Amino acid sequence: MTRTVLESKSKTAVIGFDAPFCVIGERINPTGRKKLAAELEAGDFSTVEKDALEQVACGAAVLDINAGVVYNSNPNPNETEPPLMRQVVELVQGLVDVPLCIDSSVPGALEAGLEVAQGRPLLNSVTGEEERLEAILPLVKKYNVPVVAISNDDTGISEDPDVRFAVAKKIVERAADFGIPAHDIVVDPLVMPVGAMASAGVQVFALVRRLRDELGVNTTCGASNISFGLPNRHGVNAAFLPMAIQSGMTSAIMNPTRAAEMEAVAAANMLMDHDPNGGAWIGLSRVLEATQDGTSFAEASKAASAAGAGGGRGGRRRRRG
Amino acid sequence: MTRTVLESKSKTAVIGFDAPFCVIGERINPTGRKKLAAELEAGDFSTVEKDALEQVACGAAVLDINAGVVYNSNPNPNETEPPLMRQVVELVQGLVDVPLCIDSSVPGALEAGLEVAQGRPLLNSVTGEEERLEAILPLVKKYNVPVVAISNDDTGISEDPDVRFAVAKKIVERAADFGIPAHDIVVDPLVMPVGAMASAGVQVFALVRRLRDELGVNTTCGASNISFGLPNRHGVNAAFLPMAIQSGMTSAIMNPTRAAEMEAVAAANMLMDHDPNGGAWIGLSRVLEATQDGTSFAEASKAASAAGAGGGRGGRRRRRG
Repeated sequence: MTRTVLESKSKTAVIGFDAPFCVIGERINPTGRKKLAAELEAGDFSTVEKDALEQVACGAAVLDINAGVVYNSNPNPNETEPPLMRQVVELVQGLVDVPLCIDSSVPGALEAGLEVAQGRPLLNSVTGEEERLEAILPLVKKYNVPVVAISNDDTGISEDPDVRFAVAKKIVERAADFGIPAHDIVVDPLVMPVGAMASAGVQVFALVRRLRDELGVNTTCGASNISFGLPNRHGVNAAFLPMAIQSGMTSAIMNPTRAAEMEAVAAANMLMDHDPNGGAWIGLSRVLEATQDGTSFAEASKAASAAGAGGGRGGRRRRRG
Repeated sequence: MTRTVLESKSKTAVIGFDAPFCVIGERINPTGRKKLAAELEAGDFSTVEKDALEQVACGAAVLDINAGVVYNSNPNPNETEPPLMRQVVELVQGLVDVPLCIDSSVPGALEAGLEVAQGRPLLNSVTGEEERLEAILPLVKKYNVPVVAISNDDTGISEDPDVRFAVAKKIVERAADFGIPAHDIVVDPLVMPVGAMASAGVQVFALVRRLRDELGVNTTCGASNISFGLPNRHGVNAAFLPMAIQSGMTSAIMNPTRAAEMEAVAAANMLMDHDPNGGAWIGLSRVLEATQDGTSFAEASKAASAAGAGGGRGGRRRRRG
């Protein structure tokens, strides 16, 4: 049973075939969030703080930290990202005690994050591109951390799932040359929008199954990609996640403050026999009930978190006499 | 590619590996609906009429017809069910043009339904019980109809999925002795409540896959059983259906007037590449949008059906100039 072990200062999160689906919160990412980028440039970290607290209250087991800004004052990410990454990682791990996912396309920012992250973060990401393999795998080895492996290479992203499988296999093999075990590679097989490619779902389900059976690796994805361009995206995501989980997908980088998606993941966990006694499902059902008066899912989750024994959701509440 | 072909007077419904999931509407069934049973005893068929029209508008491809009443005036179903079945079948096929599923535990009621049903209905059901095999398979052969095969036998319902598989295999073999092909058997592997048996989901997903790969049969289930006894049942059902579909389940007997479940099925169809161009998804999304002012899903579906080109939902609307 493949298990990828992540750690914060005092907590462990496991991505694994025999574990509940690992929700990696995607919100702390200024890419495509202009307002957040401007705030960060102005030294305002209030949104980062809010996103960290909310995502953990909503059930994220891991938080992705991306500091991909392009400042008006300095357009060179090689200069701006590493110090910002350092700052955001330190801020977030001062606020919440969950493992982090250090996410950047700038190797210097990845190393900056690794230097300050407590415990055992997930590194995001290596690809099959030669230059990237040479830059990232030594970092993975040096810091002894697991890494997300995205299945594109120097030829780009193939629409052929066999090619994407082959790229993943190459990364696993190259990692092995560095002494990095397969259980520390979490493959992102790349989810295409089903609105643009009708076979996108079927492709990824088959690919996840192969990655698991043939390479023995855990998997992740940017889940909401599947619904790009379609109406009622949450409805598509909420069906995609259980289907991906049933195919063997073990984690996703997603927005944990969305009720529909988190409800689908919690139900799928129970249906995969990864929620003993349905405790997590029952806890989530209470939170969803509390949203019926118009309270947001994030607010209701925070209230439930605060009312619980300090441990967030995830089990039947202990009765206190 | 296994295809089970059902017909009404003029329409065909296919349960198949390469077809959209077949929703069999469960509502016309007085078992456990005391009010409906009393109405039927009093000769009032208004609820049956409403249920027939609503279920088809909401997207049911097939309607299950069960006349399982226990009248105060006559507690013997062998006497009361056959004439009532005949009456309900004739009424429903006068109202809607979809194939029917003739559902009874009383062989006389099954034969009564078969006698009056137009086209090629689905018979529901045979089991692995000796007496039942001997009573039902000759009817299946005589009327050349497909049949639901429930995987329990004279020893009851086994909690062991291997035993349930073996019962299904026995039914398929016995049917073959009668000249009934495997593609006319739709196996119900029996869905247990996941709240009572934590492995219920995993069990049924594996079983469906085996039934498909090893016996080449289509499958069905009473989908809502999975969530029995749990809070927020629609949430459980809405994750279960996509996971079952991804495992290869090709139909379910379910309530098509429930938006959450129908949304999950429509999204799963698209993700299985069984909704070319997402036409059905886009149509359903419009109906769901129309429910946002408090209109019920059934009402919104009926309005959309009426506005469409007389053909219910299922594709992009033709633009009319």
